[in-house]
Amino acid sequence: MSSAGEFDLIARIRTRVDAAARRKDVVLGIGDDAALLQPTPGHLLVVATDTLNEGVHFPAGTTAYDIGWKALAVNLSDLAAMGATPAWCTLSMALHEAQPAWVDAFLDGFLALAGMHDVALVGGDTTRGSLSISVTVVGHVDPQAVLRRDGARVGDDLWVTGTLGDAAAALAQWRAGGAIEPDLRLRLDQPTPRVEAGLALARIAHACIDVSDGLFADVAHLCGASGVAAEIALDALPASTRLQAMFTDETRRVLQMSGGDDYELCFTAAPSRRGEVAEAAQLVGVPVTRAGTIAAGAGVTAVDARGQPWRPPRAGFDHFNG
Amino acid sequence: MSSAGEFDLIARIRTRVDAAARRKDVVLGIGDDAALLQPTPGHLLVVATDTLNEGVHFPAGTTAYDIGWKALAVNLSDLAAMGATPAWCTLSMALHEAQPAWVDAFLDGFLALAGMHDVALVGGDTTRGSLSISVTVVGHVDPQAVLRRDGARVGDDLWVTGTLGDAAAALAQWRAGGAIEPDLRLRLDQPTPRVEAGLALARIAHACIDVSDGLFADVAHLCGASGVAAEIALDALPASTRLQAMFTDETRRVLQMSGGDDYELCFTAAPSRRGEVAEAAQLVGVPVTRAGTIAAGAGVTAVDARGQPWRPPRAGFDHFNG
Repeated sequence: MSSAGEFDLIARIRTRVDAAARRKDVVLGIGDDAALLQPTPGHLLVVATDTLNEGVHFPAGTTAYDIGWKALAVNLSDLAAMGATPAWCTLSMALHEAQPAWVDAFLDGFLALAGMHDVALVGGDTTRGSLSISVTVVGHVDPQAVLRRDGARVGDDLWVTGTLGDAAAALAQWRAGGAIEPDLRLRLDQPTPRVEAGLALARIAHACIDVSDGLFADVAHLCGASGVAAEIALDALPASTRLQAMFTDETRRVLQMSGGDDYELCFTAAPSRRGEVAEAAQLVGVPVTRAGTIAAGAGVTAVDARGQPWRPPRAGFDHFNG
Repeated sequence: MSSAGEFDLIARIRTRVDAAARRKDVVLGIGDDAALLQPTPGHLLVVATDTLNEGVHFPAGTTAYDIGWKALAVNLSDLAAMGATPAWCTLSMALHEAQPAWVDAFLDGFLALAGMHDVALVGGDTTRGSLSISVTVVGHVDPQAVLRRDGARVGDDLWVTGTLGDAAAALAQWRAGGAIEPDLRLRLDQPTPRVEAGLALARIAHACIDVSDGLFADVAHLCGASGVAAEIALDALPASTRLQAMFTDETRRVLQMSGGDDYELCFTAAPSRRGEVAEAAQLVGVPVTRAGTIAAGAGVTAVDARGQPWRPPRAGFDHFNG
């Protein structure tokens, strides 16, 4: 393994980025003290930052490609939850040592996902330290089509995209020290940010959040911001056939309700718009499932098909106490 | 020492930020999946990201206040070098453990500097890991008044703001394991981003860079981007009286030429505009010094008053090989 200095690394990254398709609204990308970008007239800027640290947000041994993918994906997911279109990003990498092969593989994953969403990497830095990747994504949104956490209304349906629990199952297998089932691991390592779904739902949904801390915790965030309560229908929660086959009902519920890292969207919409929600979802090829209702009051309850209440063993994934 | 969870910490930060003066262009700050911001019509966005890691960018034992200050200062310095006005920032903190007292002191430093420049903290995250602070600053600039690295012209004067070498002297004392002289340490720990100077010089200077890697290395970056050469006049380099008193001429030159972390601005301007440069500098209360000239060719040379060439022991501060 050879190592390279900071400037070599930045030059390496810059070459890779220059070779990729360029956005016309990037006036000046990597290579100066800061990037110069042309905002979209009439739109608001949308900015999100998320950091992944080895051993906390991904298992040691996660491939460089997957770390690159996921570091961008978790940020795109935040923009998806706002109904925003991502445009540009910056990347801060702290690495134990500067290995060109590792960085190249990291960029393969990062830029593969960036290319899928036409996101330009416009700046950042590389430093020496424990493996940590911090990404900031900047996008834009029509002020009339913003999805926020605080718009849920009493009587709304509560919906989720995709399926829940696969990533948490992979994390649980990792923490237990055993082998991680490859398909589950793929959901943990390469989450799919629901950018197109967020855009398609932006004029239909009342409120939205991405499921990063676990459904129970994230619905609680949404309810807290909106000043409402939610009742989740446990037996309605969408699970992959893989998850259904591998775990008992009780374990699966814990994974679906408390596990993080799914990066699906959880949103609310009026019951009168169920048809439009289904159409929007079909248009972008993302399944959606009604998984509860919004009620007056505060707090989140979850009940099974017999109406029995259920409490999670712990609320969400807290990076300090988890 | 008590510890708090991630959501407690974020709530703590949010309370502090909400209590500070709010910018009208922050439509939605901390508390949703992403921030919503109103860009300045007719201006370009300017985005910079820089990370500080314990033991690499600041000595272990640096106070939380100073880490907070410096994490923002190094980013504001990048915007200063573009002639831009900072507006908003995000903050990613990786901490060994979540100590409210430490975070409060960190925010004291961070928000003190943010308040001086009317910068709103609009998002970020807190994670568990080795102490690392990553900040992204977003600002705006009139497209007609952008300072870039690539605008230097043959015949330009080379200028620097303030004095050079104090921060490097403090770093050298730290690395030598001895006590750090308090005034030098202040320059290392609480650098002054030259935001007002950058704005005042934006329509006068041809090119600009901030001195973060060391003057020799940063002038080389500027020359490389501009396709020119530079000759630095060693004996003209501005030094604090403290630095002059504490070190031999040869050591002082190494600190001034090769040491990083000064966060002064290095810029070029036509000799016909010396009067305007001096006026702009006086207006914002920042001393400026002519320290060389831009010539045809490539590379950076440095000569003393007798015309003797000088080479630094190493070129700049490289975080991987340094």
